[in-house]
Amino acid sequence: MRTNKAFEILLVLFIILLIIPSAALSGNESYKTLFQPLPDRVDNPENPLNRDKILLGKMLFIDARLSKSGFFSCNSCHNLTTGGVDNLPTSIGHAWHSGPRNAPTVYNAAIHTTQFWDGRAKDVEEQAQGPVLNPGEMASSKELVLERINTIPEYVSLFKKAFPESKDPITYENVAKAIAAFERTLMTPSRFDRYLKGDKKALTSDEMKGLNIVVKKGCVACHRGPALGGNSFQKFDYGDDMGRYEVTKNEADRKVFKVASWRNVALTYPYFHDGKVWNLDEAVRIMGEKQLNTKLTDEEVHYIVIFLNSLTGEMKRIDLPVLPPSTQNTPHPDRN
Amino acid sequence: MRTNKAFEILLVLFIILLIIPSAALSGNESYKTLFQPLPDRVDNPENPLNRDKILLGKMLFIDARLSKSGFFSCNSCHNLTTGGVDNLPTSIGHAWHSGPRNAPTVYNAAIHTTQFWDGRAKDVEEQAQGPVLNPGEMASSKELVLERINTIPEYVSLFKKAFPESKDPITYENVAKAIAAFERTLMTPSRFDRYLKGDKKALTSDEMKGLNIVVKKGCVACHRGPALGGNSFQKFDYGDDMGRYEVTKNEADRKVFKVASWRNVALTYPYFHDGKVWNLDEAVRIMGEKQLNTKLTDEEVHYIVIFLNSLTGEMKRIDLPVLPPSTQNTPHPDRN
Repeated sequence: MRTNKAFEILLVLFIILLIIPSAALSGNESYKTLFQPLPDRVDNPENPLNRDKILLGKMLFIDARLSKSGFFSCNSCHNLTTGGVDNLPTSIGHAWHSGPRNAPTVYNAAIHTTQFWDGRAKDVEEQAQGPVLNPGEMASSKELVLERINTIPEYVSLFKKAFPESKDPITYENVAKAIAAFERTLMTPSRFDRYLKGDKKALTSDEMKGLNIVVKKGCVACHRGPALGGNSFQKFDYGDDMGRYEVTKNEADRKVFKVASWRNVALTYPYFHDGKVWNLDEAVRIMGEKQLNTKLTDEEVHYIVIFLNSLTGEMKRIDLPVLPPSTQNTPHPDRN
Repeated sequence: MRTNKAFEILLVLFIILLIIPSAALSGNESYKTLFQPLPDRVDNPENPLNRDKILLGKMLFIDARLSKSGFFSCNSCHNLTTGGVDNLPTSIGHAWHSGPRNAPTVYNAAIHTTQFWDGRAKDVEEQAQGPVLNPGEMASSKELVLERINTIPEYVSLFKKAFPESKDPITYENVAKAIAAFERTLMTPSRFDRYLKGDKKALTSDEMKGLNIVVKKGCVACHRGPALGGNSFQKFDYGDDMGRYEVTKNEADRKVFKVASWRNVALTYPYFHDGKVWNLDEAVRIMGEKQLNTKLTDEEVHYIVIFLNSLTGEMKRIDLPVLPPSTQNTPHPDRN
């Protein structure tokens, strides 16, 4: 384990050394090696997007009948009106259960290279299958979800449209695929994207100062790529949660988590996997100490937070779907 | 009490006798004395509508920070995507509490002459103040609501815009007024309104049959006016709930409830104040027996339900608001 740790530190230092010469002197050309603008949507060859599938996915994302109680939808915890999160330390689930980790945002999630804090799902298609079945979240079963959908004629016809190539389109995997298709469109470009695309005035001088600091300090060793995070795992020695170790049982994965994305970070409080830190300044300070072994100055924190605020993106205009009513055969909600 | 009951029966019979000659022979001219088309919105001189107030109201309606836990919004139980209700027998509230009565729809609620099943609030402005403070619903306090709002600068400026005449616009009453302003726009006109406005082909012949039956049978003694209900109280001897008696302590009000609206009734299952009847056919049968002392035939029930389905209205296109983030001073959610 010690070797691993040493290797990790070396790797981070190596990445930082690689980055500094190419980026620290600023100019958005060099930043393009670190960051990339958000795409309009994220494609997945195994789940080709089409309009009907995206629309169906939006309906299912908001439909509480996916939960046993008929009360929780995906949107309950990944709330589209509040940065794609519930702004709770950990989510409230079936029978008032408390989730073990802070709910990550659904906005731009599709661009992450894995899903969940511990990366246990490879993409949003796989992720969407989890919370529906979790007894402390939506507490449903595959059978219940499919029976509810099969007894609602409008859903039956929407599934046929959304999966035209499929003989038997109503499957649990397709429920998740439709939801994931919707999620793949939930990109929130910000002024930072305009900057990356060449508009040098898109960021204020204070935001540029913050950007230069996160590059120089090495934050961008991990917070990089189009989501400024979400594409690597790192050890984060904070709290008792064993993180990715619970998935891999690999000693090197103790307290290893997926790096959080900086996109919309000003909206996705409270912070970290336990959701115990409410203040973005404090989160930045903790990160400096724990991950870079640096005590950031008040000034540095100030400008970093100003930069992070520039990553609050434009939320797509989403009109509320009108969900089709249940029928006589639809299993009733069950709050027990 | 016996005299009251006799008087009640006489009154209903009297109304029926008044109605039949003018309406049973059909023709939408005569139906206009029974029913009126929905307005675009319902005004209240004490709460003048303006665009900013309606927009603010929509945000507050969807904002879970009005609840102590930060999890429940008005929309949790009066869900705009599912006919303005939660389709649960009774709602789930703070700490998994169970509400005592079925949540009525927010669509067209503003046109009712009183609010709640027992009519204990005179209008939507008064109604909106209730669930926020109910320990088994949103479990909040006036102080908490105002402190949350006062610490969110975007809300502070939105309240100023919404209540331009007010020196101190952020009051609990104004929170409710803004929500009510939004609700006053939630009208869902249906084909029945087109029919009432003169389009004789707006209803199918089966729907017309159903309409003629509800007029002839006397259902419209109570289910009348623009909401086809919602404008009178009636005794409903069903279950143990004492209804309006709990409010007035008047013996004559035992088991008296506000007449439910037929607007969108196909979407607002399960039925009655206890939400125990899932089937609209069954609800119609029970009503015939209990309220009209009539055993409706299968054919009558069939056409009545067809007519009731024609009252499912067009839901206004509502785009999801982007809610302003909390700040360092905003009281945190509290699930206890």
